[in-house]
Amino acid sequence: MDWNAFRARFHLPDGVIYLDGNSLGPMPVAAPERVARTMDEWRDMLIGGWNDGAGGEGWMSWPGRLGDRIGRLIGAPAGSVTVGDTLSIKVFQALDAALKMRPDRRVILSDGGNFPSDLYMAEGLIGALHRDLDLRVVAPEEVADTIDEDLAVLMLTQVDYRTGRMHDMADLTARAHAAGALTVWDLAHSAGAHEVDLTGAGADFATGCTYKYLNAGPGAPAFIYVRPNLQDAVEPALSGWLGHAAPFAFDPSYRPGAGVERLRVGTPAVLQMAALDAALDIWDEVDMAALRARSLELSERFAAGVATRCPALTPALASGVPRGSQVSFRHADGYAIMQALIARGVVGDFRAPDILRFGFTPLFVSEAEVDGAVGHLAQVMATAEWDQPRFRARRAVT
Amino acid sequence: MDWNAFRARFHLPDGVIYLDGNSLGPMPVAAPERVARTMDEWRDMLIGGWNDGAGGEGWMSWPGRLGDRIGRLIGAPAGSVTVGDTLSIKVFQALDAALKMRPDRRVILSDGGNFPSDLYMAEGLIGALHRDLDLRVVAPEEVADTIDEDLAVLMLTQVDYRTGRMHDMADLTARAHAAGALTVWDLAHSAGAHEVDLTGAGADFATGCTYKYLNAGPGAPAFIYVRPNLQDAVEPALSGWLGHAAPFAFDPSYRPGAGVERLRVGTPAVLQMAALDAALDIWDEVDMAALRARSLELSERFAAGVATRCPALTPALASGVPRGSQVSFRHADGYAIMQALIARGVVGDFRAPDILRFGFTPLFVSEAEVDGAVGHLAQVMATAEWDQPRFRARRAVT
Repeated sequence: MDWNAFRARFHLPDGVIYLDGNSLGPMPVAAPERVARTMDEWRDMLIGGWNDGAGGEGWMSWPGRLGDRIGRLIGAPAGSVTVGDTLSIKVFQALDAALKMRPDRRVILSDGGNFPSDLYMAEGLIGALHRDLDLRVVAPEEVADTIDEDLAVLMLTQVDYRTGRMHDMADLTARAHAAGALTVWDLAHSAGAHEVDLTGAGADFATGCTYKYLNAGPGAPAFIYVRPNLQDAVEPALSGWLGHAAPFAFDPSYRPGAGVERLRVGTPAVLQMAALDAALDIWDEVDMAALRARSLELSERFAAGVATRCPALTPALASGVPRGSQVSFRHADGYAIMQALIARGVVGDFRAPDILRFGFTPLFVSEAEVDGAVGHLAQVMATAEWDQPRFRARRAVT
Repeated sequence: MDWNAFRARFHLPDGVIYLDGNSLGPMPVAAPERVARTMDEWRDMLIGGWNDGAGGEGWMSWPGRLGDRIGRLIGAPAGSVTVGDTLSIKVFQALDAALKMRPDRRVILSDGGNFPSDLYMAEGLIGALHRDLDLRVVAPEEVADTIDEDLAVLMLTQVDYRTGRMHDMADLTARAHAAGALTVWDLAHSAGAHEVDLTGAGADFATGCTYKYLNAGPGAPAFIYVRPNLQDAVEPALSGWLGHAAPFAFDPSYRPGAGVERLRVGTPAVLQMAALDAALDIWDEVDMAALRARSLELSERFAAGVATRCPALTPALASGVPRGSQVSFRHADGYAIMQALIARGVVGDFRAPDILRFGFTPLFVSEAEVDGAVGHLAQVMATAEWDQPRFRARRAVT
């Protein structure tokens, strides 16, 4: 893969080393024109854009077509992924559907490395359901041994948003299935970060977002996957009209649409989908195995450099633990350290209570930048440059 | 109000008389630049846009700020409206919250003029809740007399999406309250169409979309209103992280945020909010009483013209029934008639099974266009121009 050629397809501000594509990916060079073209379609086609926009395919068909393109990156066949809403909504839908398929089981198992919103959505769903359900949250390394015959749904984020720890999806899915349970995998830090094989792992449901590694922009839509042989059994609680078998028949009662399309809800966000379309043009050309190899090269180079030069930073993961495309460290003053680093133009992020997080995305991060980031971090630590009020002051979105 | 000046703030294709702003509003002239500026913020600020984008206010704060501006149009005080998701999701949230406040009641009352997705979302919620609930759907004129002591929630769309019939929000809300019930009003065809006074009516919950009369573009976000003195009692089922009291504390358990902000769910759609921001710049200048007067002038002029010149079209509403900002007619061949009319450049829309629907939005529709539309429709009907295979052939999105 010609990584320099990929890098040229993104806008990156001068003087910035961007190691936060795992929070919000940078803008593809082609995105503004694609969004502007979609605005032109709105201007010129008005309501007709739903049939004729998106370059003639119709805005309305975009969720499925974009879903299929994401599918290639995560081992999902055509017709098994649809795009829309936010990740929290898609998690709710997946968990709701899975729970309905296990009416006699009472445990949802997750771990402390799951993104809090996934756990919150589970809490909200349990509160609504009036079913005797128990959300068990264990440490990541305890998940495998906590699976038992009470389990309804194993609900995990594959890659821990703080530490970067990666679960073995195939192994845990097999264990859940052996216990008679279903799985819901959140791929927020997986899609576009490394190879994912939902089909090979036998995963039942998966969800993810497109504004991180997929680079589709702030507020880009989420996606949901349902294993093909489960799709017809899904009974959506969020039974919106665009998941209806015939949305424009305006039937008085809901009838689920075909396959995964029944997990569409309301009118899709067309401008956001335009940006996603431009971002996926890049992804269509990426070999995921090569990407993973390069991601490990870059992240191990960074981890080794920091280990040597910044002994005060504690690696968030023990050596040898599988990880995604990020490297994290712990430090009690992590917030201020990260602000000092950002002031130098090296952008990672902080996650409470004490995690410094750096994402390594081969499409736009080079070895020279990795080395530069290590150098800046070493200087910030060596001089206690971070220990200033301006770096300790918290902002709204951290 | 200088209606010609408002019209100059919208792009409308030459040769088109657009009477479908009640389905998808036309593009504000300022929208492309606003969206492009937001793309620039993504490009230049990267993750920092959440704090510093939206012209310095931060993308993250946009849902509340945009909600307050919509609030002025619907009689809602600051801090009672937030923007996000789709209308179907917001209906689900409002109904869920209201039902939890009436745990001992068992009836949800709606009418056959409600938008089907609202009814579908109610079906899905009831299916999930495992509570003994009954969704009663009556004819619009029977609603008032069906309210009784079993009622938990009265859930109505104020203006019927097909006929344009308008409910008396204050009267029905008072009746519901007298029976001990709560109200959920869908303002899809009200916000930006006529004066709405949620506060004066004592409405409990309201929802709406911004891509119709508010002209915020395809897939623009929805909004939700909660009466201030109810907000702290809302227990969201869709308990996403951005509705948490401290989203970036990453607490393991959900704690609802302040007021209506607890009905935020996931990451908001920033590009769509940029277009909404541009659309609301126009609305900030609109006097809603003057708009309503002008809307009635235009729609009555159209209704009178069609009554005189197109006797084969049956008005969808009896004379004297209050209506919103649309005029509708019934005809068994309504679909083909509408396609023939669209081919002439007069864009209304068709709603199954037999409704021809025309929206009159004073911001960009003139008397001359109303007269032109009547003339075209009269010709289509007089010559049976619509009776051709090319007009009878159905398209995906009708």
